[in-house]
Amino acid sequence: MSQAIRIKLGDLIRDFGGDLIGDADIQISGISTLSGAGPSDITFLTNSKYRAQLPASRAAAVILAPQDQDATEIPRIVTHNPYAYMAKVSALLHPLERPSPGIHASAVVDASARIAADAAIGPQVVIAAHAVIGAGVVIGAGCHVGRGVEIGADTWLYPGVSIYPECKIGRRGIFHSGVVIGADGFGLAPENGRWLKIPQVGRVVIGDDVEIGANTTVDRGALEDTVIEDGVKLDNQIQIAHNVRIGAHTAIAACVGIAGSTAIGQHCVIGGAAMFVGHIKVADGVTISGGSLVSKSIDVPGTYTAMWAAAPHREWLKTVAQLRRLDTLAQRVRELEEKIQAIERKPT
Amino acid sequence: MSQAIRIKLGDLIRDFGGDLIGDADIQISGISTLSGAGPSDITFLTNSKYRAQLPASRAAAVILAPQDQDATEIPRIVTHNPYAYMAKVSALLHPLERPSPGIHASAVVDASARIAADAAIGPQVVIAAHAVIGAGVVIGAGCHVGRGVEIGADTWLYPGVSIYPECKIGRRGIFHSGVVIGADGFGLAPENGRWLKIPQVGRVVIGDDVEIGANTTVDRGALEDTVIEDGVKLDNQIQIAHNVRIGAHTAIAACVGIAGSTAIGQHCVIGGAAMFVGHIKVADGVTISGGSLVSKSIDVPGTYTAMWAAAPHREWLKTVAQLRRLDTLAQRVRELEEKIQAIERKPT
Amino acid sequence: MSQAIRIKLGDLIRDFGGDLIGDADIQISGISTLSGAGPSDITFLTNSKYRAQLPASRAAAVILAPQDQDATEIPRIVTHNPYAYMAKVSALLHPLERPSPGIHASAVVDASARIAADAAIGPQVVIAAHAVIGAGVVIGAGCHVGRGVEIGADTWLYPGVSIYPECKIGRRGIFHSGVVIGADGFGLAPENGRWLKIPQVGRVVIGDDVEIGANTTVDRGALEDTVIEDGVKLDNQIQIAHNVRIGAHTAIAACVGIAGSTAIGQHCVIGGAAMFVGHIKVADGVTISGGSLVSKSIDVPGTYTAMWAAAPHREWLKTVAQLRRLDTLAQRVRELEEKIQAIERKPT
Repeated sequence: MSQAIRIKLGDLIRDFGGDLIGDADIQISGISTLSGAGPSDITFLTNSKYRAQLPASRAAAVILAPQDQDATEIPRIVTHNPYAYMAKVSALLHPLERPSPGIHASAVVDASARIAADAAIGPQVVIAAHAVIGAGVVIGAGCHVGRGVEIGADTWLYPGVSIYPECKIGRRGIFHSGVVIGADGFGLAPENGRWLKIPQVGRVVIGDDVEIGANTTVDRGALEDTVIEDGVKLDNQIQIAHNVRIGAHTAIAACVGIAGSTAIGQHCVIGGAAMFVGHIKVADGVTISGGSLVSKSIDVPGTYTAMWAAAPHREWLKTVAQLRRLDTLAQRVRELEEKIQAIERKPT
Repeated sequence: MSQAIRIKLGDLIRDFGGDLIGDADIQISGISTLSGAGPSDITFLTNSKYRAQLPASRAAAVILAPQDQDATEIPRIVTHNPYAYMAKVSALLHPLERPSPGIHASAVVDASARIAADAAIGPQVVIAAHAVIGAGVVIGAGCHVGRGVEIGADTWLYPGVSIYPECKIGRRGIFHSGVVIGADGFGLAPENGRWLKIPQVGRVVIGDDVEIGANTTVDRGALEDTVIEDGVKLDNQIQIAHNVRIGAHTAIAACVGIAGSTAIGQHCVIGGAAMFVGHIKVADGVTISGGSLVSKSIDVPGTYTAMWAAAPHREWLKTVAQLRRLDTLAQRVRELEEKIQAIERKPT
Repeated sequence: MSQAIRIKLGDLIRDFGGDLIGDADIQISGISTLSGAGPSDITFLTNSKYRAQLPASRAAAVILAPQDQDATEIPRIVTHNPYAYMAKVSALLHPLERPSPGIHASAVVDASARIAADAAIGPQVVIAAHAVIGAGVVIGAGCHVGRGVEIGADTWLYPGVSIYPECKIGRRGIFHSGVVIGADGFGLAPENGRWLKIPQVGRVVIGDDVEIGANTTVDRGALEDTVIEDGVKLDNQIQIAHNVRIGAHTAIAACVGIAGSTAIGQHCVIGGAAMFVGHIKVADGVTISGGSLVSKSIDVPGTYTAMWAAAPHREWLKTVAQLRRLDTLAQRVRELEEKIQAIERKPT
């Protein structure tokens, strides 16, 4: 989060494209919001509705879309995707500070584990037998990597991640603190009023470029694997049950739960706190609104919703009461219909 | 997860019962789904609706129910509970690999703690004063066991479990990574616009044969104890508040929340993401559908539900709008009734 | 949880106020519920509806409100806020046992970190460069404190808390096991069917007297900070997204999720499992019922709700079906209205 880097606008254009209106030699050293930007910061306008804030901005430059390019005199980078452009500039200004390679003296690493020479293994990490840790991997303090786990090149585990035996993780992943990969799925067989545990012997297999948020859990498969495909992004406190499959480049917001054996398609967007029952299939390109429960397979792309918005308490109680009385109301309408029929039949 | 074990079908019948149709000397070394099974695997049919997959299965044998026993020529074990049978066979084929007994050199164990000689205490475990660790217990890397905690024989803590002081855990338990037992309940008394903390001095008391999923939390009682009875199975990311009691052999799916002082009966089945308000009682043998909110005590066994299924977004908006207009609709029906009355009263 | 302390009723009156009816020299050594109290315990009546339990109580004394003071002959402390009084007496009887100051030999503390002499740093803690740990701070086993983190005086981290770099935590805080402060917010920009990560370079800034429950996560800001003001109380498994602000003295029950950039006012009370969409503002003094989804800003104090209570399954299905048929019902009412109009227009 140190920001000693200085970049010229011309260099941004060279690296990331876009059209420059203004002086290519202007230097920026930070990125900030329209209102927060100082004279050495670049800012961005990703939504025309904030255009009114532009004149007051003290920023050195602004990233914006063609339709907004005449809204200011500030030097500006014009691009069709200002949000993605902003992401790239911010990444340039905030390079990750990789810890030095090597294995901390307090880490406990099994002799049979294979650790790339340039991996960084933090304090109090435990790496079990036959694990394979790829080039450039960073494993934060107190992580536990189980027997036979494979972690692909340049993946980063923040402190306190647990990975159960035999799971396989791709390259360039980011796993936040408290993530648990590969715990047993919830497999139980009832017998005489008790529950027998069904051994969970599948793995979790995670593709490349996957980010998983803090305290999210992904259970191992019962017999076959739980699979998270390439480019999936999971927010915090998500629960992925055994034998789920999440399609490539799907993004899932926080507090979502996905029950066992459900398959989510590719390029889906799942709103926060959505819940999925087990054993269903959701097509590619589906959007689920936050807080919605998905109880059936979805075959057609589009947005799906089941969400009641909070209202003043008394108003809500009235609505609920009315819904309860719907039965009576329907009965009254039936009676009215009969009476009208009788009246209509009557000779006048 | 190594599968070097080979078992004869006759030995399964001897150990677990069931009727064999086929050669008792056939050996199996793995268990898999109907479609995934290879020629040395046993498979299973727990639901007649998958019967159509049976002919194509390459399995060496199949576990199935009497009503399906004529659906295949494969050697087969006929039993009234194929799912439980499958659980037992799978457990036989996948024995847990217990770590060697002993205390890892990097563990920090208080001198006053009593650790059974055959317990296995992993790297970087911390065990505080006066804790009592039973025979055959396995404590994974980085677990924290508080002062005075008792853990019964053969219980297994996966890496990264935290148990607060004075809690008591039964025998043969399984606790997954990130579980927190005995953190303070949410007890606050308002005074002059601030919240005073109410010390949480009860414990968590957990029976035998309890399994608790990854990142689930069970809070200690305020004054008296929070209690999880024998044979309870909790999935991942469940929150059990202070002074809750969960009856024996109840199973609770992931993402459920149970507020303070609520008592759930025995042999209940709680669907994922169900929520319970505090201070209510749920009878034995109750099933709660996933995603449902339970706001009152339930005295009668049966299934209870409050769950809206996601629909295409426009359709959902129409339903919501209609519900909002229900008030007006009811008013219009009242007016119709009055008009009809007037018409009926009128002399023709 | 040891209870060797003995206190006279007169001393309670001296320290905490209230009126004593009975002998000031009576000693108590514990606090318990009406039914659980023994002859050396003090008990309390915080809700007149439990008054009937008072006569049977074996307690040495009772804390109660003026309206209940004649309901018993037991020595009693009369106060307008018995619940707050009980909190204070319980705190007196259950003083926290602070571990001895000092840094455990197994902790890994960077040489540039500044640790107050009387702080207690537990086993296997990791404290990174430039962190500042205040006077009287307790850091439990296995906590991870990132680079540049500041922790104010007398804050207590239970075992297994992770704090990411640069976050700032106030005084007298209590952080339970599994809490993750400062993980990356969920910031993604779509580009060509993939997600670009937006660096999360804001911090989490937490005020004084904040308590955070087990496995709760608070994400760092994208550019500016996520802020938790003084006196906020968060229960377990809450998710606070990037750039959220929680106003002072707001209490939030378990399993709540608050999406990005939402601002909750001061002195709010949020029920369990409530969910908030992003980019909204909730006024001071708002109460949200448990399980409710808040989808719009709330400007007026009061209670807001959207909560369906579980009903017997068939009853619920009937309600849902009726709601689905509402469209048809409205159509039938329209037809009735037209027919009545026709009848009324007709000359009799």
